[in-house]
Amino acid sequence: MELVTQALTGNRYALARLISLIEDDGPEARAALQTVYPHTGRAYVVGVTGAPGTGKSTLVNELAKLWRSRDTTVGIVAVDPSSPFSSGALLGDRVRMHDLVGDPGVFIRSMATRGHPGGLARATGDVVKVLDAAGFAIVLIETVGAGQAEVEIARTAHTVIVVEAPGLGDEVQALKAGLLEIADVLVVNKADRPGAAQTALALEMAVGRYAVNPGNQADGSWRPPILQTVALNGTGVPEVLEAIEKHRLYLHTTGRWAQREHMRARAELLSVLQQELLQLILTRVGEEQLQHLIRRIVAREIDAHSAAQTLLSLLEA
Amino acid sequence: MELVTQALTGNRYALARLISLIEDDGPEARAALQTVYPHTGRAYVVGVTGAPGTGKSTLVNELAKLWRSRDTTVGIVAVDPSSPFSSGALLGDRVRMHDLVGDPGVFIRSMATRGHPGGLARATGDVVKVLDAAGFAIVLIETVGAGQAEVEIARTAHTVIVVEAPGLGDEVQALKAGLLEIADVLVVNKADRPGAAQTALALEMAVGRYAVNPGNQADGSWRPPILQTVALNGTGVPEVLEAIEKHRLYLHTTGRWAQREHMRARAELLSVLQQELLQLILTRVGEEQLQHLIRRIVAREIDAHSAAQTLLSLLEA
Repeated sequence: MELVTQALTGNRYALARLISLIEDDGPEARAALQTVYPHTGRAYVVGVTGAPGTGKSTLVNELAKLWRSRDTTVGIVAVDPSSPFSSGALLGDRVRMHDLVGDPGVFIRSMATRGHPGGLARATGDVVKVLDAAGFAIVLIETVGAGQAEVEIARTAHTVIVVEAPGLGDEVQALKAGLLEIADVLVVNKADRPGAAQTALALEMAVGRYAVNPGNQADGSWRPPILQTVALNGTGVPEVLEAIEKHRLYLHTTGRWAQREHMRARAELLSVLQQELLQLILTRVGEEQLQHLIRRIVAREIDAHSAAQTLLSLLEA
Repeated sequence: MELVTQALTGNRYALARLISLIEDDGPEARAALQTVYPHTGRAYVVGVTGAPGTGKSTLVNELAKLWRSRDTTVGIVAVDPSSPFSSGALLGDRVRMHDLVGDPGVFIRSMATRGHPGGLARATGDVVKVLDAAGFAIVLIETVGAGQAEVEIARTAHTVIVVEAPGLGDEVQALKAGLLEIADVLVVNKADRPGAAQTALALEMAVGRYAVNPGNQADGSWRPPILQTVALNGTGVPEVLEAIEKHRLYLHTTGRWAQREHMRARAELLSVLQQELLQLILTRVGEEQLQHLIRRIVAREIDAHSAAQTLLSLLEA
């Protein structure tokens, strides 16, 4: 496929078009992904997640700049409607991101959070594959970190950074229990604000209380470090990058890397399979039969599970 | 099933046990749901969603109290780890909810946001069915309103209330685009704070810009009202309840009610079907074959879509 060849050999316009093609999940997307896939597996994928207002976009921006200063190429996938990398962002933030925008070693893509036929997690995973195959050494995924789909997406990364900030109020802070479970590195951003030490202390205690990322467990030797940053002026960002590198080394030396790859492949295979099976059965059953069953469900004559069993038995016959 | 009979005839302990059974989604859950389902369809389901910090739990609490004062029974399902209805909440908030807790006309249940084999949306929908069948006239679902799963859950309600609050910062506000789409009633809570009028105005403009709930569209005659409340002292809450009643009437008189029921039934059937099909294929294929394909995906010899095709062709053979 010519578009794939162009995209993987540095044509940015082709890359953008290929990503759009894959987001739309049409028949051409399948073929494209098949061509792309053998070229994947080289990028290091970092997930950055946290509640709105923690400044995770700024941290992503600073991490990207730091990697660039070390001549490492960076792809950024923003899965957050409020991200400055997305179109809906405030002008000020977008201007701040401009030093990345002109750089050929950086590719930024924001994902629409709705309208993905196969789900947001699938679409994001596929876009990461394209950036990986296109040769970006680091792929950063930014997600808003509230909601199951978003946590699933962050979880597919090799290293997951969970960003907190002082003074966001208890309701926002309370979101963290679910996020702490998947954290490999914890960052208290906006650490120049009052309450940063308290937030760090609360995290320190919480890390003991909640389970850490299952990808790290078993021997229990990785304990997420808690770092303080002021991303807006770059303070503490080199330490975050260092922690990512340490975690990467940890994954490789302990064999956790292979485990994560296996888990990821299994989850993806089952998810694709589920989607294909549904297509298959809908083609075979036909709309009329389906409508009949839906009407019976609405009339409370039959529940959805029993209706599903009826359809399955039609498939077997 | 005796547990179901007890739960549906007012035994609260049995009701709690039945809900746990159904959350766990084991083989007994299926049978229980089959017994429960014919008794459903009487409750009016109201979704309350919004960003963290908007005070939606307080609004849910006040709405429930108001309905109770009119002798209407209320079930509450909190799908929000930060909700005061959930176990992780602050003591002060929980104390405030206490006037509901002792009331036999109220049943409060908070959902774990993780660990649902068939997904959070499925589990929440099933718990709503149980409360419906148990005779609660109103079922309130509280979700955090960020993330695809949470929006899906809110969408299953008959009336969706989206809660905003002034001064939460642009990042939080920016989440609203996705939520506005599903809103039937918009509430600016904490309206005694500075900026409430501005927030209401911004919503007013946004309502024009974004599509309204497709369940209301077609004749386009329902335009979400924008109401201001101070839920903490009950100000404006009767008007919210009135707007819900108006929307309910609207759904019934325009035939949108039947449309929504049909859409809901279809979505549920397809989701259940997808899950059952996956179980079926995993039983037939066997773990060894599956592991072999996963290893090939990890080695980049084959992509997930092609592997899924291989499994499907095995099924056909």
